[in-house]
Amino acid sequence: MSGFVSFVSAGPGDPELLTVKGAARLREADVVLYDDLASGAILDLARSGANLVAVGKRAGRLSARQHHVSRLLVDYAATGVRVVRLKSGDAGIFGRLEEEIEALRAAGTGYEIVPGVTSASVAAAQAGIPLTRRLTSRRVQFVTGADVTGELPADLNWAALADPEATTVVYMGRRTFPALAARLIAHGLAPETPALLAESLGHADERLVRTTIADLAEQLTHAGAATAAAIILFGALAPDQG
Amino acid sequence: MSGFVSFVSAGPGDPELLTVKGAARLREADVVLYDDLASGAILDLARSGANLVAVGKRAGRLSARQHHVSRLLVDYAATGVRVVRLKSGDAGIFGRLEEEIEALRAAGTGYEIVPGVTSASVAAAQAGIPLTRRLTSRRVQFVTGADVTGELPADLNWAALADPEATTVVYMGRRTFPALAARLIAHGLAPETPALLAESLGHADERLVRTTIADLAEQLTHAGAATAAAIILFGALAPDQG
Repeated sequence: MSGFVSFVSAGPGDPELLTVKGAARLREADVVLYDDLASGAILDLARSGANLVAVGKRAGRLSARQHHVSRLLVDYAATGVRVVRLKSGDAGIFGRLEEEIEALRAAGTGYEIVPGVTSASVAAAQAGIPLTRRLTSRRVQFVTGADVTGELPADLNWAALADPEATTVVYMGRRTFPALAARLIAHGLAPETPALLAESLGHADERLVRTTIADLAEQLTHAGAATAAAIILFGALAPDQG
Repeated sequence: MSGFVSFVSAGPGDPELLTVKGAARLREADVVLYDDLASGAILDLARSGANLVAVGKRAGRLSARQHHVSRLLVDYAATGVRVVRLKSGDAGIFGRLEEEIEALRAAGTGYEIVPGVTSASVAAAQAGIPLTRRLTSRRVQFVTGADVTGELPADLNWAALADPEATTVVYMGRRTFPALAARLIAHGLAPETPALLAESLGHADERLVRTTIADLAEQLTHAGAATAAAIILFGALAPDQG
């Protein structure tokens, strides 16, 4: 009796942006462990008898602790069933995948990673622009705007992030963006550097805001607590559509 | 009579890693313009009457010039048909998307971008590791190892790339990697920094090599001309599987 865990990258939440393989794994699953952000329409793909287990740890909410999730994965797999661990975006990008993989390896449980569409690609596509530009943006970088405590990580490479010739994408960074923007401007990045805020990608209430890093920082300083998932792009962005 | 162009991200070439939306666009297409690298099994999804047009520009081969591709897109769309422009990986990441978008905008042709799975995500998934690590790799960056002439771009941000706390992914960089590694080591990156070469991702002859940047540079210095697509990861990579 040996179960198997498929880490399935859910993409932004729109079932159309799931991979063909990810959709197949969901349909075949006996158990699906999912976070809040990867729920909704994607879960409708699971068969009616599947066991859907919420293990969400959305920022600001009471969290199921990571070791509990790892334990669940190992224990469900040990019963010989097909387990899907659903992760929003691409599981390998800010998906806290490593702790869960380590637990499976320690337990001798087989696993696979089904890659997916990361939010940076979705945000750019929805804005009608590429993430890279042939002559003016040959480097694209993704960082997280929140450490485990929810604060801006203290040890980011500010010089690398303040490079005006890169396109930078900040995941989980809405709340800390005013602090990040201040650090970037202190490191020489122009306040009028183009920025794009993308909220609720792939959902009905999707919202895109194109502005500058200084203005976005100003807007977010005065914004109340937000619950919608957001991603921020800045740097050598291509001109706006139309 | 107004046609429409869907830029469809093909992912690595395995039809299972195409998005549900991308597969649907391909099945509905009247015309599919594709590059060499995005051909094969993916094209089998197009309906039998669809017009499949190769516009490949593989490195080292005679290239259809970019303005010719843009002209074809505009001209096909002007006949009122559904055009798919297939791009390997994620169209927005080193996909030379901007020139084609600009041509469509200038002509007033409607378009959409269907995002997809970029090769970096596939390489990490196939190696069984994440691209980011919670405490030790909070930044992941993608660069191209080849400029329009095929050489290592002269103006890359070497300090940003030599950061041992980032995970760096080099697209189209096999031939120039020995030169890149020398620059990185000169900028302080340790020769024994972990590296991963992934060739022919998603194809039957897929090959993964885990080593160090110095050893990979040495291997590639002595390798003959290669035709398989390759991607290179280096930096704060998670430990090897098993």
